[in-house]
Amino acid sequence: MTITAELVRTLREKTGAGMMECKKALTETAGDMEKAIEALRKSGIAKAETRSGRTASQGRIEAYVHDSRIGVLVEVNCETDFVARTDDFMRLCKDLAMQVAAANAEFVRREEVPADRVEKEKEIFAAQLANEGKPAQIIEKILGGKLDKFYSEVCLLEQPFIKDDKKTVGDLVKETSSKTGENIVVRRFSRFRLGAE
Amino acid sequence: MTITAELVRTLREKTGAGMMECKKALTETAGDMEKAIEALRKSGIAKAETRSGRTASQGRIEAYVHDSRIGVLVEVNCETDFVARTDDFMRLCKDLAMQVAAANAEFVRREEVPADRVEKEKEIFAAQLANEGKPAQIIEKILGGKLDKFYSEVCLLEQPFIKDDKKTVGDLVKETSSKTGENIVVRRFSRFRLGAE
Repeated sequence: MTITAELVRTLREKTGAGMMECKKALTETAGDMEKAIEALRKSGIAKAETRSGRTASQGRIEAYVHDSRIGVLVEVNCETDFVARTDDFMRLCKDLAMQVAAANAEFVRREEVPADRVEKEKEIFAAQLANEGKPAQIIEKILGGKLDKFYSEVCLLEQPFIKDDKKTVGDLVKETSSKTGENIVVRRFSRFRLGAE
Repeated sequence: MTITAELVRTLREKTGAGMMECKKALTETAGDMEKAIEALRKSGIAKAETRSGRTASQGRIEAYVHDSRIGVLVEVNCETDFVARTDDFMRLCKDLAMQVAAANAEFVRREEVPADRVEKEKEIFAAQLANEGKPAQIIEKILGGKLDKFYSEVCLLEQPFIKDDKKTVGDLVKETSSKTGENIVVRRFSRFRLGAE
């Protein structure tokens, strides 16, 4: 049983638990979603009044165009049309679209980065560190930090928020989720720059 | 030498000639772009004052959102920033974005439809026709028409224009191209529908 990124994401959406926790739970239950939810609840990671089962299928498609040269579409999901029409949610959608326009994320979340891309980054970092004469046992350690840095550049939810870099975009989403009391999921985005691929 | 869709498209953009003409020219010149342009000129298909060589790298990114539930980004290229700012060009971009929102194209042009998708459509049509008891030699003939119909549904440039179905979207682009005197290329689009894949 391979624990796919898709599976981890679904469990995250269902429980609001962290990525590593979800991955662990799924690994331990051999990918059984219901058992994994149960395990997370038992361990107290997913709360009793968890949002599990309530799917985020409402929301908004937001567009932002800068100077006719950069265009962004974002889909942000919440659970009810009521919340989708609140100022808090609409502000979040606008902020997300501007963030994508300005900071050029490539993925929504790290689970979406293709494995070969991660491997390539790792190789480059490892080669850099080896060139700097770092011993092998330290390289492995630094590598984690380097990778985190890489994710914080290419993954929307891990980027520093352009309007307040003391928090990540993921923090911003969580804040709005708490305020509105609903699951909020940044589903996907598209970004066009004039003349670029 | 395979004549790729990409090659045909480049030649079309350089000469403004039709798809079949470009494919023929490239086949006859074994894929040599310069010779193919020459051949098209010689045959009078590409005019002497052809726009060949003038690349369409300016333009606009246009966005359109319908009711926060359908969002569209379109990139439309022209040759100069001057034309990109004309009313004619801006109107075209708006019309294209609305067209994509309303008529749900999947591709810009037929060269972009994956070969296996076309094969599948062909198989389905052929099976339908065979079930209707049509003789094999007629099936081949009808198949062309069926495929054209398919392309006119899934390819933006072959769709009937939503505001005037007596012309195709491709005609609309050509009209604006003539008015502005520049190559205009619909480069790409993205379409999000809330909750859809």
